[in-house]
Amino acid sequence: MDEKTPGISFPLEDSAGYLLRMTHRSFARAVQAEITPRGVTIGMWYFLRILWEEDGLTQRELSQRIEMMEPTTATALRNMEERNLVRRVRNTTDKRKVNIYLTDEGRALRDVLLPYARQINETALAGVSAEDVACFRRVLSQMRVNLGAGDDEEA
Amino acid sequence: MDEKTPGISFPLEDSAGYLLRMTHRSFARAVQAEITPRGVTIGMWYFLRILWEEDGLTQRELSQRIEMMEPTTATALRNMEERNLVRRVRNTTDKRKVNIYLTDEGRALRDVLLPYARQINETALAGVSAEDVACFRRVLSQMRVNLGAGDDEEA
Repeated sequence: MDEKTPGISFPLEDSAGYLLRMTHRSFARAVQAEITPRGVTIGMWYFLRILWEEDGLTQRELSQRIEMMEPTTATALRNMEERNLVRRVRNTTDKRKVNIYLTDEGRALRDVLLPYARQINETALAGVSAEDVACFRRVLSQMRVNLGAGDDEEA
Repeated sequence: MDEKTPGISFPLEDSAGYLLRMTHRSFARAVQAEITPRGVTIGMWYFLRILWEEDGLTQRELSQRIEMMEPTTATALRNMEERNLVRRVRNTTDKRKVNIYLTDEGRALRDVLLPYARQINETALAGVSAEDVACFRRVLSQMRVNLGAGDDEEA
């Protein structure tokens, strides 16, 4: 069992993808701790976060923005409708499309929950210099370009 | 509808958490494109990646490393057992524990799949200076400390 693995070596801690996933998980856990007591799941959170900026997007547009498969998106949005956070409205000019609108309750959650998101970001970046924050943003942006972010979303 | 939202403003693109999630998604999509044709899901991938380094961890340890809920971990590992990638073995000294061991097939996948992971990381970091890569690692590490990575994993 002690026999060393042959072939290439690529330790987890060397992997930028692994570090990204773990840091993303740390954020998600911090957000979850604040929103769960308010009856909002992390899945709902990602949709709310976008709808607060752009109400009325179609289900497909939301699916693409969040990079979630469309069936998963549809299920999540039905749950959000049951929870009275959004209304799903069949598009009158294109019957294949469904537009998603915040309810008053969904919209009102913004002022309750958004301060937590900002606070978590401030906590996360405490002690990080402005230069390093700029570098962090620059590297992530370059990575998304390099990986062709969203290239296959139209498929 | 054009009425500006009251309260605090915190645009998505300003959010480090959002940028992390989207970049993580770009990585996950790139990995998925390589492993799916080989019958490995992204859920299985995270476990394989760890087991290739530390075979025989318990289900709970794996759950903690991956930051996945234990019931979700249990389901994923049962799927991996059906797929003949791992064996789940009841710990003889502590019956509450289940150790997870790679099968020959699971172990052999390492040399097939790991080169893709390394290639995707190289692609992602193309054109990023060594200083910026170091900064990226430093910032992510600080974020995980600040957010108390894994603080509640023992719960």
